Amino acid sequence: MMNIAVAQSGGPTCAINASLVGVFRESLKEPSIDAIFGSINGIEGIIDNHLVDLKSMLLSDDDIELLRQTPSTVLGSCRYKLPDWRENEEIYKKIVATLRQRNIGAFFYIGGNDSMDTVNKLSEYFATIDLDVKIIGIPKTIDNDLCITDHTPGFGSAGKYVATTLHEITRDSTVYSMPSVTIVEIMGRNAGWLTASTVVLHAMGESSPHLIYVPEADFSLENFLRDVRQEMSKHKAVIVAVSEGIEVPEGVQSGVVDNFGHKYLSGIGKYLEDIVRREIGCKVRSVELNVMQRCSSHLASKTDIDEAESIGSAGVRCALSGQTGKIMIFRRVSDMPYTLVIETADAYEIANNVKHLPKEYINSAGNNIHDFAIPYFMPLIQGELQPIMSHGIPRHFAIHESVLK
Amino acid sequence: MMNIAVAQSGGPTCAINASLVGVFRESLKEPSIDAIFGSINGIEGIIDNHLVDLKSMLLSDDDIELLRQTPSTVLGSCRYKLPDWRENEEIYKKIVATLRQRNIGAFFYIGGNDSMDTVNKLSEYFATIDLDVKIIGIPKTIDNDLCITDHTPGFGSAGKYVATTLHEITRDSTVYSMPSVTIVEIMGRNAGWLTASTVVLHAMGESSPHLIYVPEADFSLENFLRDVRQEMSKHKAVIVAVSEGIEVPEGVQSGVVDNFGHKYLSGIGKYLEDIVRREIGCKVRSVELNVMQRCSSHLASKTDIDEAESIGSAGVRCALSGQTGKIMIFRRVSDMPYTLVIETADAYEIANNVKHLPKEYINSAGNNIHDFAIPYFMPLIQGELQPIMSHGIPRHFAIHESVLK
Repeated sequence: MMNIAVAQSGGPTCAINASLVGVFRESLKEPSIDAIFGSINGIEGIIDNHLVDLKSMLLSDDDIELLRQTPSTVLGSCRYKLPDWRENEEIYKKIVATLRQRNIGAFFYIGGNDSMDTVNKLSEYFATIDLDVKIIGIPKTIDNDLCITDHTPGFGSAGKYVATTLHEITRDSTVYSMPSVTIVEIMGRNAGWLTASTVVLHAMGESSPHLIYVPEADFSLENFLRDVRQEMSKHKAVIVAVSEGIEVPEGVQSGVVDNFGHKYLSGIGKYLEDIVRREIGCKVRSVELNVMQRCSSHLASKTDIDEAESIGSAGVRCALSGQTGKIMIFRRVSDMPYTLVIETADAYEIANNVKHLPKEYINSAGNNIHDFAIPYFMPLIQGELQPIMSHGIPRHFAIHESVLK
Repeated sequence: MMNIAVAQSGGPTCAINASLVGVFRESLKEPSIDAIFGSINGIEGIIDNHLVDLKSMLLSDDDIELLRQTPSTVLGSCRYKLPDWRENEEIYKKIVATLRQRNIGAFFYIGGNDSMDTVNKLSEYFATIDLDVKIIGIPKTIDNDLCITDHTPGFGSAGKYVATTLHEITRDSTVYSMPSVTIVEIMGRNAGWLTASTVVLHAMGESSPHLIYVPEADFSLENFLRDVRQEMSKHKAVIVAVSEGIEVPEGVQSGVVDNFGHKYLSGIGKYLEDIVRREIGCKVRSVELNVMQRCSSHLASKTDIDEAESIGSAGVRCALSGQTGKIMIFRRVSDMPYTLVIETADAYEIANNVKHLPKEYINSAGNNIHDFAIPYFMPLIQGELQPIMSHGIPRHFAIHESVLK
């Protein structure tokens, strides 16, 4: 008999708890697994031996389903970057102490790029000290920028929220008789996947978004103003989808840097709004979809949530088959009918790399996405869950804030 | 036989099209009503004789249900303020010409405060020229700041969106181990109803929002910082709901400059974020719920949409009973069971007045709403519609943009 541990890391999404549920449910089925520990605040909980017993936290199928539909990370998160073990072994010794004390035979880390780096380092280190603890990475990120996997859990729900909201903003923008420009700023630090996914609205017969700007295309203010003027000659209400990650003149982005060297971006939408107002002089506004993109589980994609659970389950089976240092990935067999298989990749192949939007998705003017990209995005936003309501508001599963330190 | 006309005005909500549907369905039932005209861009369509035939636009029950669930104003909107007819009669003559040419015997104006002013002026003017055209106002506004009526159509759906989103943002905010402050900016220029309605989260067992600031309470930065510090001593992630309409030092709304030299043309939330960062120095962010508050029909309150349709229907019956210059209103009979009746008020009583949040709802520190206000808000956000989906996204009913001028 062994115990296992699971942790969640990085920025919240609607699907991270579904992956936790996948790990939990699959582990319950397995006679060789005894306790299922949740590590509080990602790898920090392993370092500090701050674990909760998930079996005593999730007491019923209702609890589990509620957690599956709860956004963000029920166990808390972290942005902790492990040092190289050759330079600083102290942290690794603490991790090993917890794993041994708790008799943990497998550790599942649900997270983005940075967490996959942790999976890679831990599996390397354990090999050198001959510690038989399996380390498996389960991907998540609304940015969809992990390599090798067809897409990442969390992306589909974010895409469904962004497309639905952009559709509603389109209705909101077309009411007055005066010409207007609405700029919608969408998350995506390095890659334009989420912004590009708004192209699905074209399949609904909408001309909106009329312009789509992603970091993978060169951006210039001169071309931007030319594009906006051109669209204004065709449409009374011009809708622009813009990635937070597009490159604009220096100084615009806030420049605050996190532990991984990522810049926190804000305000491209507001910046472009000011430029349109000054240069074109029309009615203009900007809308930042902000954290709602990653936490609006009331509008989650059922496909996404189900896949997130499946890839968590698959992670457990992977560890039990004796593998370690692996990241679970999706391989798409076909768009229509949408068919997916879950496979594995080596952690070192995925960690610290970024998967960009394919150049061929972007039109030659660099201001829109070709409709032939729609079949990639469309299956990921299909289906709805029935939110579990209380007092007219979707309920959530939460552990008391005092447990999260 | 007579024809009727209906128009929509002011800022979009999720419920204005439902009121249009109420007018349409009730008129269909009435043998004395022939054509049902929709006026494009509010009263401007009457002035310019720019009308559409709604019977040839809404061809099936499916069309009607889809329109009922579509946000914003299908006929466009305006912010047109009629002059006093004693000073400028020209516009009134144009209106009368359209009404006579189209044989319109009743005009229904769905809108906010300014539209109720239009209803008042038109009914006064028609009395002086002995024109027998009934004028009925059907209220709407997410701000809930119209007098006499218990609440306004559109407010319940906005409240459901704001509470749901604040709940999700609460989950999103509690993931990291470091203390943080999240400031959520909510619409309401003159009245704090929508911001105050976030108190319903307390009925879910949430301590969030920890602080609620409305325009009806005095606001000072000194007290605000004291409040935030106090809540930080109790909660790791402090959530603040703030109305866009609170009074802050002069010049803030029109041109505050952040540390990087950006001007924020709007943004009480961003302003307070900067102050918390500078004065307290903790992790802080602000989220502006922006137009999503008024157009997120995918999360509409069924109670709100049904009531919006009912009050539209009641408007038609009111006109047919021979009344004019009236605004349809809700009177609440009881909170539990929630019981409502539809009545009328004179337009002059409602036009150009603002209904503020009752002082007794606000706590003595001016930084939260008493839980005894919950029974007022709670019934308004109950129930969900089943969105009509296509391609994984809620569908909308829209008329071609070329029709909207």
